[in-house]
This record gives sequence, C-alpha cells and structure tokens, in this order.
Amino acid sequence: MWEYAFGIPDSLFIRGDVPMTKEEVRVISLSKLRLKKDFTVWDIGAGTGSVSVEAALYCTEGRIYAVEKDENAFELIRQNAEAFGISNLTVVPGDAPEALFDLPPPDRVFIGGSGGKMEEILALVKKRLKQGGIVVINAITLETVHRAQDCLCAGGYEVEAILVNVSRSARVGGSHIMQALNPVFILSAKSAQ
Amino acid sequence: MWEYAFGIPDSLFIRGDVPMTKEEVRVISLSKLRLKKDFTVWDIGAGTGSVSVEAALYCTEGRIYAVEKDENAFELIRQNAEAFGISNLTVVPGDAPEALFDLPPPDRVFIGGSGGKMEEILALVKKRLKQGGIVVINAITLETVHRAQDCLCAGGYEVEAILVNVSRSARVGGSHIMQALNPVFILSAKSAQ
Amino acid sequence: MWEYAFGIPDSLFIRGDVPMTKEEVRVISLSKLRLKKDFTVWDIGAGTGSVSVEAALYCTEGRIYAVEKDENAFELIRQNAEAFGISNLTVVPGDAPEALFDLPPPDRVFIGGSGGKMEEILALVKKRLKQGGIVVINAITLETVHRAQDCLCAGGYEVEAILVNVSRSARVGGSHIMQALNPVFILSAKSAQ
Amino acid sequence: MWEYAFGIPDSLFIRGDVPMTKEEVRVISLSKLRLKKDFTVWDIGAGTGSVSVEAALYCTEGRIYAVEKDENAFELIRQNAEAFGISNLTVVPGDAPEALFDLPPPDRVFIGGSGGKMEEILALVKKRLKQGGIVVINAITLETVHRAQDCLCAGGYEVEAILVNVSRSARVGGSHIMQALNPVFILSAKSAQ
Repeated sequence: MWEYAFGIPDSLFIRGDVPMTKEEVRVISLSKLRLKKDFTVWDIGAGTGSVSVEAALYCTEGRIYAVEKDENAFELIRQNAEAFGISNLTVVPGDAPEALFDLPPPDRVFIGGSGGKMEEILALVKKRLKQGGIVVINAITLETVHRAQDCLCAGGYEVEAILVNVSRSARVGGSHIMQALNPVFILSAKSAQ
Repeated sequence: MWEYAFGIPDSLFIRGDVPMTKEEVRVISLSKLRLKKDFTVWDIGAGTGSVSVEAALYCTEGRIYAVEKDENAFELIRQNAEAFGISNLTVVPGDAPEALFDLPPPDRVFIGGSGGKMEEILALVKKRLKQGGIVVINAITLETVHRAQDCLCAGGYEVEAILVNVSRSARVGGSHIMQALNPVFILSAKSAQ
Repeated sequence: MWEYAFGIPDSLFIRGDVPMTKEEVRVISLSKLRLKKDFTVWDIGAGTGSVSVEAALYCTEGRIYAVEKDENAFELIRQNAEAFGISNLTVVPGDAPEALFDLPPPDRVFIGGSGGKMEEILALVKKRLKQGGIVVINAITLETVHRAQDCLCAGGYEVEAILVNVSRSARVGGSHIMQALNPVFILSAKSAQ
Repeated sequence: MWEYAFGIPDSLFIRGDVPMTKEEVRVISLSKLRLKKDFTVWDIGAGTGSVSVEAALYCTEGRIYAVEKDENAFELIRQNAEAFGISNLTVVPGDAPEALFDLPPPDRVFIGGSGGKMEEILALVKKRLKQGGIVVINAITLETVHRAQDCLCAGGYEVEAILVNVSRSARVGGSHIMQALNPVFILSAKSAQ
C-alpha cells in the first residue's frame, strides 16, 4: 500500500523484464496529465502498470484502463494493482488501437508504448478523447517523437515537449556515483476545447 | 484556482524577480517529500511560494509554513496563496534558522534556499523534525550539494541524490528548439524511524 | 592566435548577435568530422565561423569554405579568421544549396544551420561529397533532427546521433551555480566507401 | 592506427573490464588540457590509456606518462599504445602520488582516477606542475568533485567546472533509442603564471 502523494519508488513495483516508467519521469508525466478525481484514463502500453497504479490512486472516483498486449505484462499489472489495493483499474489485454474500441471515452490518455502504431492509435484517440482532453506520450526513440509530434500537430492539439535527463546517486564504496537514466521525451497535447 | 493534481505551470504564479522552483523540478521535489494530507511542512527559502502552494493544496488537513527573508518575496507568496485559494499556509518572514524557532515540529521540510546557512538550518531541523520525517533540498550550486550532503550524512539520515536536467520546447518560427533549464540536484533525506 | 589543439574558448571569438557553436559542442563536432590535414571542408551556416576557424587551424594543407547568408555574419567570419591568423579559409556569401554549386568537392561537410533547406542541401551534398566522406550536423530543433535523419538514412549513409547536454559553472557570490547550455543533437553520417 | 584528429571511437581500444574515458568526454577533456606538441603530460589513473593515447598522438615531440596501479590496466595501456603505433608514452606502474615522484615536471596533468587520494595527488601536482600549467580532472562521484574543487581553489588555481551529459542513439528494431552515458564533471584548473 502507498500512503503518500505521487511518486512510488520503482522498487515497490513487481517488475519482471517488462519496461517501466521510472519514478521521476512518471511523476512528471502524471502531472502533465492534469488529473481530476473522477477522470477516465487510458494507459496505452501500460507495461508494469506503474502509471496506471498511480493514476488509479489519485482518480478514486474515476477508472483507469491499462491496455497492454504482452501477456507477461498484464499479469504484472494485475499483481501491482492488487499490491496497491486498487479496485478502479481495468486491465485490457490486446493491441492498440483495436483494444481501445470498446472502452469508454477518456478524459486523459497516456501512451507509454505504441507498438509501432502511433498514427493509428492517435487517430482513434482523436475520435474518442473528450473535449479539452489531454494526451501525454513518453518517447524514448527519436522516431516516436517525430511521429507523435507530426500526428498531434496535424490533429490540432496544442503540443508541448520536454526532454528529461535524470541521474541518480548510487553508493560505490564510500562514494556516490551518478548513474544516468536514459533520456525521455514527454509530449503533452491538449485538444481544443 | 487549480483543479488538478500536482504540477501547476510556472506561468500561473505571480513571480516578479524572485527565483522559482520550476514545474518539473517542483513536481519531483514534491513527490520526494512523500506528503500526507495532515502533514506540517516547512518550506525554507520559499521564494515565490510555488512549492508551498502545491504542498498546501495537497495537505488540506495540515499546514505549510513558508519561510522567506526577502520582503518582496513574502508579499508574492501571500498573493500566490490567495490566487490559489489557500488558507492553510502561513508566511513566516525572517531568516532561517532563527525564523524556525517558534514553528511547530514538521513532518516534512523542503529547503529551496538556505541563504548560506545550510549547516545551521539542518542542525535546527535535526532537532525539530518528527521521527521518520523527510527533508528535501534543491541545490543549484555544487557548494550547496556538498554542504547539505555532508550535514545530512553526519546527521544519520538515509540520503538519496538525483540530478535533473530538463529542456522545454519553444516555438521559434516554424520549429521547436529545446531550451535547457539549469540542472538541479534534488537531495532527499529520511531520518531514522 | 591560438597555440593549442581544438577547443578555442567562446570568448575569444568576435561574436555580435550571430549564433555560435559553443566550445564543448564544437569540439565534439570537430572530432566527429574525422579531419585530416589536407581535407576540403564545407561549413554550411557558418555563423561566427568558430567551426571553420578550428577546422582551418587543423587542416593546414586543406581549405575550409564557410558558407553563410547573413551579411553581418560573414564579416564576422573574416574578422575571426584574421584574428586567428588563418589563410586557408574562404568565406562564401550566399544561400545554401545554391552557394555550394561552384565549390570543390568536399571530404567533410559540417552543417550548423540550414535555413530551412536541409533536404535541398543534403541532396546537393550527396552528389558532391567524396567517397567515404562524412557529414556532421548540429541540430537544436526536433524538426531538424527529423529531417536530417530522414534524408541521411534515405541517402544510404551510416548515421549516428548523440545528444549533448552541457552545463558550466558560473560564480555567483561565493558559490558556483551550474548554467545549462541548450541541448544539441550531433548527427554524424558516413557515406558508403 | 588512427589517421584523424582527436576522438578515437571507444570500440577501437582494447578494453577488458577497465574503466574508460568515453569518446565525447575524452574529446572535451583533451581540449581543456590545451595541449602543445612538445608537452609533458601526466595521465593519472590512466585506465585503458585512451586519454594517454590521444595525447601521445598529438604531443609528438613531448611525452605522456600513464600512471596506473592496476596490473591488468597497465598491460592494456601498453597494448593500446602499440595498436596506435605510439612511442612517446611511458607506462608508470604504481600508486599516485608515490609513482609520480620521479617523473619529469608536467606541463599538463589529467586525473581520470585518484584512488581516493585526490588531496595527496593534488599536493604533489602543485609542487611539480610547470608555471601556467593546467590540471584537468574527470569526476563521476560528487565526493571527487568536492574534494578536487576544494584543493584546487585552496591551491590558487583558476577553476572551471562543466557537467557533461551525453546520450547516444542505438538501433533497437527499426528505431533509435537514446542511451545515456553517466554524467561526468570535468574540472579544469589553470595555475597562476
């Protein structure tokens, strides 16, 4: 269980080999989502579910849909949801965008992984996102940045991009070296009202 | 007024010439504070009050003490608190550590500026911080990192340091250049239970 | 005059308002150019001429062509070349790619600015670059990264990209704050032998 | 053999498990050394010898002393020196500062590793460094930054510090993720004339 505000340490999630949105990047991404308590959130490419879990802890009157195609991953999401005592999170197994068809329209969409279908996903999101909705994308490849930015701009969103480089101290002998996490681009896009 | 979770855009604060904890660094710092609703928080070197305001919005059953020596700044903090509809924030004019003497013991301490008295401040904090309390420090100079780390380690805290480099896209003509914010070290220190 | 190897401090160049490749990024860019003494180098969008000057100091048996469209800038390049005692640098006033038509085929091409004509410039470079030649590009906008990378990959180059974030200490009172330079992407592309 | 200016790719060095100054950081460090052809250079904590090799290739009329205590490492340095056809590099097995006693006075000193004896090494360097000499230090721990900076400032040097974060693109499937190298502080200190 987590008793505090945002920012669950990475080590508290059950992980396996599934990629994970690291604490500091997750916290910024969640803040860019501009969440409210009763929001419906799609978490596409949910991985270990760390973003879903934190969103679910905040959106206590809303519901989070964690969409994930990797079997190993969606089992992890369930375990993590349970470990954090969450009941407002639905795991949606399957590929986006197909897996999104039957979900209720979202107030917010987080895309942590697109499986190479960014255009198709954003086309579907464009149709389903509520007025004034926000899409936040984490991109670790330059190609994803390009494709997402092109789609979002073409889709009439107001787009903001930030680049985040975080290093963490790690004790080595009596000293602390700074270990770099890979840089992440965080795109956030607000749809017209 | 702010209706969402953490991460108020910098532009929504009244600023003047007073230094400000930038949105992304503020969000990470707030998450490292591990806040609960009923916490007492000292914000030392509060500047524009951006950290105090966000902490106050979260700690609705607690109280935030924004300690600031600069007259221009503490007026700004009051204005920002009012703009965000906050009633659980007390502006404490004066120099730390002296200004801290009469405050109630804190669950959490954020130090955004130490006015060159990091050792004295941390010595006082050590005495007053509640068991299991957390201190988070933003350092923009190497000297502050050194001094804070030395004190915290000597004080028996469990210390973690991260270095955060954020760049933000800015439209220039039809393109987006990435503009760097200065790097910030975020130290977080947990006192023994 | 400069008596050392690469890495002339920014402050030794005459600058005006013209953009400049900063020392640390310049040094990495020059190293990625894999220069030899007798090379012909095109420096496109030469700005203050800082890359041209350093390349000219190294390629003593070769020649550097500093292509620049801004009148203020090409006067600066001449002044900087003179200040550093350089005689193997030709300032080529005009817009790329047109200004490149009459230049001798290059061993190396550096692109510090493309004036929005990256595709046209790279198409011309593709025709004129010697076998085994290398193109190095500094990009400060995401759009330039995309466009350059797309062209270079389509052109059959072997492309490597790095992202460089540098901060420099600056004395403020008795302390040293770290001041960030904007991040720069350095693309380097080797043509097939 | 290496036919170009500074910046030998990491992959061209024989490495084993010995730490190595990465290409981009090495290039900046070499530039900060302000080398001349006939300089005597001490490379303390030489590791794989990558800095020594590049310095030796430039200082063709000078000599490089690669000081290293790790047996595995100094064999590597010899192999790398041979692979790059270098004859002006002397491997000095042993611990600094003791191993430095019999070396000729240096024009330049590079410290890539101090084995926890930064103060002792810098005290010795202070005595032996030629007038107007330069010391460049790579630090990957905050403790090393502190200790080096304190000593250098106390020693009357003019000190400059930069922080370098580099990420490199790596192909993963059809995309390029950016992989971060750990941040490195590069201190450069000029002794009074």
